[in-house]
Amino acid sequence: MSTKIETAGQFDALLAKYDYYIFDCDGVIWLGDHILPFVVETLAMLKKLNKTVYFVTNNSTKARTDYLVKFSKMGILEVAKEEVFGSSYATAVYIDKILKLPKDKKVWVMGEKGIETELRELGYTTLGGTDPALTDAGFHFDANHPALHNLDPDVGAVVVGLSLSVNYLKLSVTLQYLLKDNRSIPFIATNIDSTFPSKGMTLIGAGSMVETLAFASGRRPDAICGKPDLSMMNSLKADCRGLKENPSRGLMIGDRLNTDMKFGRDGGLDTLLVLTGIEREDVVRSLSDTAPTYYADKLGDLYELWSSKL
Amino acid sequence: MSTKIETAGQFDALLAKYDYYIFDCDGVIWLGDHILPFVVETLAMLKKLNKTVYFVTNNSTKARTDYLVKFSKMGILEVAKEEVFGSSYATAVYIDKILKLPKDKKVWVMGEKGIETELRELGYTTLGGTDPALTDAGFHFDANHPALHNLDPDVGAVVVGLSLSVNYLKLSVTLQYLLKDNRSIPFIATNIDSTFPSKGMTLIGAGSMVETLAFASGRRPDAICGKPDLSMMNSLKADCRGLKENPSRGLMIGDRLNTDMKFGRDGGLDTLLVLTGIEREDVVRSLSDTAPTYYADKLGDLYELWSSKL
Repeated sequence: MSTKIETAGQFDALLAKYDYYIFDCDGVIWLGDHILPFVVETLAMLKKLNKTVYFVTNNSTKARTDYLVKFSKMGILEVAKEEVFGSSYATAVYIDKILKLPKDKKVWVMGEKGIETELRELGYTTLGGTDPALTDAGFHFDANHPALHNLDPDVGAVVVGLSLSVNYLKLSVTLQYLLKDNRSIPFIATNIDSTFPSKGMTLIGAGSMVETLAFASGRRPDAICGKPDLSMMNSLKADCRGLKENPSRGLMIGDRLNTDMKFGRDGGLDTLLVLTGIEREDVVRSLSDTAPTYYADKLGDLYELWSSKL
Repeated sequence: MSTKIETAGQFDALLAKYDYYIFDCDGVIWLGDHILPFVVETLAMLKKLNKTVYFVTNNSTKARTDYLVKFSKMGILEVAKEEVFGSSYATAVYIDKILKLPKDKKVWVMGEKGIETELRELGYTTLGGTDPALTDAGFHFDANHPALHNLDPDVGAVVVGLSLSVNYLKLSVTLQYLLKDNRSIPFIATNIDSTFPSKGMTLIGAGSMVETLAFASGRRPDAICGKPDLSMMNSLKADCRGLKENPSRGLMIGDRLNTDMKFGRDGGLDTLLVLTGIEREDVVRSLSDTAPTYYADKLGDLYELWSSKL
């Protein structure tokens, strides 16, 4: 059974109990391009109280530096690059630290700029991705395209994320690498969200593109670098020793039960669900085993409760 | 245990036993753009002997008239439109005869010209498909595109087939229709082949695109109109009364165990596997329950055995 945070006393107890606050972004900090009420103040308050904060997001189209721009535009100025964990960064960290892919190997990317940026920052050469050679022919598919026939022997990993510029050629070249060398090149998904909300619609998520390539290749991804998979949590803990040693001092804050809350719970953290995203209070109250530790109407409530005492 | 057809006597017995010969095309009649040896002669022989022939194919990018052009280019001149069952035609027949969609309803298509042609020939208006409005913006995805926001209230079916001109907008609009009206608009797959062979490569098949939309929408297709699903067999039998009344007088000839041979077997027909496609003789010989009735090195062997007696 979840506890609803609605009194200043409850919030004081929460502040005393946790040092590490891990935030999902969309539906918690902002909704699309709109910041949610009292979020700026809540984050400033946590920093003032010397709490450690991290922002985790499954959106792989952006790199961490792109997120800093977004935070800044929203009026959240005090975010450091090191506090942002996007699935594009988590993917690059996975390839570097866990897969230990040598830097003279290349990474084939089906996805957007964010993945390319993070991989290049760690010293890898990427192929595919936003390379204009893959879209120059428009929507005419040419089965003789050199990218299909001259596979690069140095490709040592295949990354699949959300590709807004997907076409049949990109899908097909990605498949050739997944089938190459007896299906042995690691297949890494940035995340497996089936959809994501945008402008009142439900759009195709990275996970749905991963399914195309999984079905075509007869393979499942070897690693998934977004929530709720543990690869992202392990990257985070590798970066934050305190959290690794004392996960119970960490609180995961998100708007989705099946990704954010599961991610926190599986990582040994307590969880706080906010109702500014897709979940409804009656559903939250009906849960037992999978109930979040706490829930609140919105993240900004924390600031409002805190400031009511000042 | 399969019987290998290798003597004239075996072939005479086969001719006496079957009136209806259903052919898969790729790997049986041709390999890509190359006709296989003695196929022209084998088909001419069956016609001369007053046998009924049908050609079934899961390729939905072409309409029946397009196939007649291909047959003609290959030197197979005596094929009538009525003898060709492509998954695009089977899909149109399914929507018309089984779904009984009123003609004032429209069909949203994710796929190529073949599907549009067959649906229009049966009197339906199609949306999506090869409409240039969906590709005009190139590979820049515009979440404000009118096709995403002005869903047509008359769409009564969604068809997903192989789309060589796929882009994120087409996928996303298709998803909106699959989610619309509480997910109630029928979801029809032309076929669910995960891949298909082309120019020595394995390319993304319609089934892999269906998986994207199934995962994103949380739905499975309501109907699958290609081999080995029975929807195509039912269309065929609806067209050929003799086959419907006496399926045991029918022989399904194909190059794939898991599609062609299953299709024939599930439809109550005997089966003949040819080894000009993807299957190997040792595998065929090791099968018991799923063994084809017969197998042969190539379709043209039938003509060679027949002509050896002349």
